[in-house]
Amino acid sequence: MIYVSRKEHFNAAHKLYNPAWSKEKNFEVFGPCANENWHGHNYELIVTVKGYSDPETGFVIDLKKLSNLIKAEIIEKVDHKNLNLDVPFMKGKMASTEVLAKEIWEILEKKIPPITGFGQLHSVKIYETPRNCVEYLGE
Amino acid sequence: MIYVSRKEHFNAAHKLYNPAWSKEKNFEVFGPCANENWHGHNYELIVTVKGYSDPETGFVIDLKKLSNLIKAEIIEKVDHKNLNLDVPFMKGKMASTEVLAKEIWEILEKKIPPITGFGQLHSVKIYETPRNCVEYLGE
Amino acid sequence: MIYVSRKEHFNAAHKLYNPAWSKEKNFEVFGPCANENWHGHNYELIVTVKGYSDPETGFVIDLKKLSNLIKAEIIEKVDHKNLNLDVPFMKGKMASTEVLAKEIWEILEKKIPPITGFGQLHSVKIYETPRNCVEYLGE
Amino acid sequence: MIYVSRKEHFNAAHKLYNPAWSKEKNFEVFGPCANENWHGHNYELIVTVKGYSDPETGFVIDLKKLSNLIKAEIIEKVDHKNLNLDVPFMKGKMASTEVLAKEIWEILEKKIPPITGFGQLHSVKIYETPRNCVEYLGE
Amino acid sequence: MIYVSRKEHFNAAHKLYNPAWSKEKNFEVFGPCANENWHGHNYELIVTVKGYSDPETGFVIDLKKLSNLIKAEIIEKVDHKNLNLDVPFMKGKMASTEVLAKEIWEILEKKIPPITGFGQLHSVKIYETPRNCVEYLGE
Amino acid sequence: MIYVSRKEHFNAAHKLYNPAWSKEKNFEVFGPCANENWHGHNYELIVTVKGYSDPETGFVIDLKKLSNLIKAEIIEKVDHKNLNLDVPFMKGKMASTEVLAKEIWEILEKKIPPITGFGQLHSVKIYETPRNCVEYLGE
Repeated sequence: MIYVSRKEHFNAAHKLYNPAWSKEKNFEVFGPCANENWHGHNYELIVTVKGYSDPETGFVIDLKKLSNLIKAEIIEKVDHKNLNLDVPFMKGKMASTEVLAKEIWEILEKKIPPITGFGQLHSVKIYETPRNCVEYLGE
Repeated sequence: MIYVSRKEHFNAAHKLYNPAWSKEKNFEVFGPCANENWHGHNYELIVTVKGYSDPETGFVIDLKKLSNLIKAEIIEKVDHKNLNLDVPFMKGKMASTEVLAKEIWEILEKKIPPITGFGQLHSVKIYETPRNCVEYLGE
Repeated sequence: MIYVSRKEHFNAAHKLYNPAWSKEKNFEVFGPCANENWHGHNYELIVTVKGYSDPETGFVIDLKKLSNLIKAEIIEKVDHKNLNLDVPFMKGKMASTEVLAKEIWEILEKKIPPITGFGQLHSVKIYETPRNCVEYLGE
Repeated sequence: MIYVSRKEHFNAAHKLYNPAWSKEKNFEVFGPCANENWHGHNYELIVTVKGYSDPETGFVIDLKKLSNLIKAEIIEKVDHKNLNLDVPFMKGKMASTEVLAKEIWEILEKKIPPITGFGQLHSVKIYETPRNCVEYLGE
Repeated sequence: MIYVSRKEHFNAAHKLYNPAWSKEKNFEVFGPCANENWHGHNYELIVTVKGYSDPETGFVIDLKKLSNLIKAEIIEKVDHKNLNLDVPFMKGKMASTEVLAKEIWEILEKKIPPITGFGQLHSVKIYETPRNCVEYLGE
Repeated sequence: MIYVSRKEHFNAAHKLYNPAWSKEKNFEVFGPCANENWHGHNYELIVTVKGYSDPETGFVIDLKKLSNLIKAEIIEKVDHKNLNLDVPFMKGKMASTEVLAKEIWEILEKKIPPITGFGQLHSVKIYETPRNCVEYLGE
């Protein structure tokens, strides 16, 4: 079992805001992250696939194909977007990095095995900033 | 003459949009950077001061004081904000990194000498992403 | 289960020195790390908490609160300090990164659940240098 | 149980090429990575050892000794080399990062316990580029 | 005058070898960099353009256009290539980073003004490794 | 004229303390940097040499020789040392990064031309932390 990771990035705006709460409660809970006019980040997305290396290619997964998959399924939908307003798979959900990682997992999980034959998604990790990071392993 | 630099960071939303142009022209010129609902970045701001090192302290400038100055004058106004809507010193200007660097220079230039006695602002450098960077030297 | 990490840093002096040994034996075992007059590092401390994301906030843990906790409980005690001489929780212990990680775990483990309600400490990871790293998972 | 990691680096040329296939098939599968005249990378190699910290030294493993071991057993054989042509332990194998990580594991696994007394190899991780990474845990 | 930089990367093989010298002299001068079967690097290329920011766009140069120019003129010719054998503009020259930076300058210098109207090339900087770097300013 | 840089690193303890002042004044001016029992850093030292590239080697300076020079003249004297107590060229001087950069310049300036034939020292740059940096150009 070998773990293979590919890092991609995207730039997006968001805010942390629970519409069921008052403006005051949102500021109390989320502080400046609730800024009405948004703020944003250079997100880094690291996707890890696990499997056995194919003796004919030496690959668990062709990282070029994994990169293309992440770009087509995720990056095109979130890059230069507003996570709260523009991203179909985040509609009606809190725009936290935790929720984002989980939603990205749901999308990618079923797309990996057709590429690898036998590999599977192991982890979705997102750096919101160089200091804040979230990882979801599907459990 | 010694050059001393301090790096700070802020997270902000923005879009590149010239209100004198049509929506179509904005998209033609700025592409996804014109996304109506904004996008955002983890900006890194590097401020460089030049001067002679004070024989009593060994300092050109106390970097703790420089950090506090940058935070009070700049970071508090841009962090977790929308550069187009929330930042007084960017009002009515294009929210490009070039313009941002020049405006930050204008603010900091007069505040440095009172701290150092003899040092002066040398450069304002901003990384919008790890790949895109702008530097302004005041000339 | 989602894993959320926060990175903080501190600058400290230390030496590797076993007082039960002769000066010669210390140099033999620890080499330049035993330098009598100390040396030091820019330590990076990464604390990971695991739990479920709260549907109301989208958070496993409010990273601002986690940052404040790490600063109050750890950084204030080790930053700009001597790990051998100034840090109460390291008294009488070897000032290695392994021991430091374990002691930081002991302090933080009981402080996390009151913040999250249900999250718990998963890992304490310390980079002593960009090339040397230690991780403790509490087992 | 504590996990201790050491990062080393090496610069090498390689190509992805299966000699059982035609030139055309190699280009179809590996794209520009099959370039006949090679290409290359600054590889980063991170070796993690797990064990208990020795109460006399505070160490799981002396990282200087681990560094020397990695240099003697691996770096000297791959640095400024061609992974396909110059490296005995890669002869007849695909020069993918997956295979490289597995072969490095095989070499290091038996060399770690004599240094630590009780520690053992936990992971071999290789960054081929800052975006592409492989990890092998021996299972 | 504002300085705007764009970073791109490429992976290439090379060796340092002067064909006018004996094999022995090459090894004496270049050491392992003369390895007959090549070695390689993840090169980082930083191109800086200087000029005034256009009041209508806020740009000195559209960094997307600069990125496309660098990719078309340079990256396509060097990425996944052998600098000694595969790159027309390096033919018959030493494959050192110094020479590479100068040749890239010659190619880009004339291509920048048509994009910007008034900007011009200021610097070509190449990191061969994170520790070794070369910069050419055209003088 | 080409600028060639080499990065080295060292780990050292220091404090900012002016012995002509009272303990109270030192704390007032230097804050926690005056901690009596020292603190420390992973310093990064970047030395830049300028010159013309030798047509026979493609080099301004052999970076391996520059690396060896920096190690012999500087790193051996400061690595795993106390900058205030252990380093002959810092004796009686403030252990600030500004002073350190200037002293390193004085040592290296005369040693570079004998290696290159025609190159000369251009800059000594030191990162005390990833956020604090000093550069000295010899003027």
